[in-house]
Amino acid sequence: MYTIGIDLGGTNIAAGLVDKSGQITHKASVPTHLERGPEPIIVDMAKLCRTLITQAGVSEDEVENVGIGIPGIANNDTGVVVFCTNLGWHHVPLREIFQRIFNKPLYMENDATVAGLAEAVAGISKDCKNSIFLTLGTGLGGGIVIDGKVYSGSHHVGSELGHMIVVVDGEQCTCGNKGCWERYASGTAIINNGRKAMAKHPESKIAKDADGDPEKVTARIVLDAAKAGDPAAVEVFREYVKYLTAGIVSLINVFDPEIISLGGGVSGAGEFLVKAVREELSKLIFYKDVTYARVEIASLGNDAGIIGAAMMGSRA
Amino acid sequence: MYTIGIDLGGTNIAAGLVDKSGQITHKASVPTHLERGPEPIIVDMAKLCRTLITQAGVSEDEVENVGIGIPGIANNDTGVVVFCTNLGWHHVPLREIFQRIFNKPLYMENDATVAGLAEAVAGISKDCKNSIFLTLGTGLGGGIVIDGKVYSGSHHVGSELGHMIVVVDGEQCTCGNKGCWERYASGTAIINNGRKAMAKHPESKIAKDADGDPEKVTARIVLDAAKAGDPAAVEVFREYVKYLTAGIVSLINVFDPEIISLGGGVSGAGEFLVKAVREELSKLIFYKDVTYARVEIASLGNDAGIIGAAMMGSRA
Repeated sequence: MYTIGIDLGGTNIAAGLVDKSGQITHKASVPTHLERGPEPIIVDMAKLCRTLITQAGVSEDEVENVGIGIPGIANNDTGVVVFCTNLGWHHVPLREIFQRIFNKPLYMENDATVAGLAEAVAGISKDCKNSIFLTLGTGLGGGIVIDGKVYSGSHHVGSELGHMIVVVDGEQCTCGNKGCWERYASGTAIINNGRKAMAKHPESKIAKDADGDPEKVTARIVLDAAKAGDPAAVEVFREYVKYLTAGIVSLINVFDPEIISLGGGVSGAGEFLVKAVREELSKLIFYKDVTYARVEIASLGNDAGIIGAAMMGSRA
Repeated sequence: MYTIGIDLGGTNIAAGLVDKSGQITHKASVPTHLERGPEPIIVDMAKLCRTLITQAGVSEDEVENVGIGIPGIANNDTGVVVFCTNLGWHHVPLREIFQRIFNKPLYMENDATVAGLAEAVAGISKDCKNSIFLTLGTGLGGGIVIDGKVYSGSHHVGSELGHMIVVVDGEQCTCGNKGCWERYASGTAIINNGRKAMAKHPESKIAKDADGDPEKVTARIVLDAAKAGDPAAVEVFREYVKYLTAGIVSLINVFDPEIISLGGGVSGAGEFLVKAVREELSKLIFYKDVTYARVEIASLGNDAGIIGAAMMGSRA
């Protein structure tokens, strides 16, 4: 038996046929074309499931259920997508539309939550009872796994770890609040601070690698320049690590998990990032003589979204 | 059948015989006399259990188990108190010493966690699946109940909600870190800011009620003055509500519980406090069109420690 996991993104819809061990056996994808609105996109997701099983030479009976990772808030009880900022979706009856085309039990959850589940079952957080996954990209998303199960709160809107307040009266956030962790510890924060550093230091490696063009500054450019020892980039990186670690300390003091794993674009900096966070963390941790969470790079990369979605049926 | 709950404080040890419905039927207490060190205090806790059942006319066989709420970190697996700052205890084999005198199954947990459990089973958070309890006193403690059970993390050091960082590089905290929520949202924060306000405004009601003596400023004096409309006190209260609510917003964005209840000395301000928090919260909440946690005053008061400890055997 198999399950299908779907990772619904703003650009592409990726789907994978996943076996019982959590391995993807076949993959397929189609462009999202957001401008079409929800219904044709949902129909395409359902059709993609058919494409996938045809490609794999698997019968429909061999597919137990389907899970979808949503870039927003989904209510798995009602089958309705409550809210997806980036897709512009509000109260979309996802399950009902989907099952008209592909009639299998359908589970839905936030994409970061689903990726956290994947890491907990088949990735770096395997064998941990309590784990937290952070995706450091355009925003800062989180997935909480407690006692081996996804935790997303009483009204399906928990696990918004990027919206913990780390600086009261701090920078304005898109959520309407000020000082959210996401403003300081997402990939976007690195880009913004990299641009400022470039303006101040036209001699920096950041400026060289981005041709002096603010639009060309990426988190990757800043992180690579910091790795190479560029002083302007090192300064941006240190600030980033300080804020990232402050939020990690809060999560450890609140959840005391076995592991906090880092995914998303920024986690591409690998050991360079993790070592810096661990060093900062050792200074800030409360109970220094009690074992505390390991900080590690997540291991499943982009596949975590598909794998976690495919696991929703058994671990929701 | 009964269980016994013990609330171990720095000044007094309070114990209660608790029936199956979560009601305290008999209470007893003795002074802690901290200076004696752990062993005689633990012996006194065990003897207090005997006093209690004698007073109640209940046989030892009718007591199923005993729970102790600890002002620090306890490892319920090993039976060892890991760390209690205020008691000066480190690695104390509580269960072993206790059971020499009163040989019943013994459970142990952080006192705020235990109070949160009491509220979830028999208090304001009854019938909620996920709830958070905050004790606003000298420090800021927290109790997390997930799916009806106490959550205290993988190494028994979670639920330290007062040590979420709300101001990176903020005020120095006793935990070694800076900017912890406790620095801004505990009763101690009200006292400190009340003293500053009094120094600036000798004409204020705070100054009058504390006889102009900084040592006499209490959270109660400041809160009562704010209720009475004293401008200096209102300013302190507004700042307090801002920081308290910032942390509550973080907890809602992370846990999305049904309820956050407020206990501890500051919660004596009742509706005056809760109304101000709710008003601030309505501006800061992320998903405004989704139901979010109610903020309420906890209902069990000082008894929560005994009741929750007594419930540890069935809800740990």
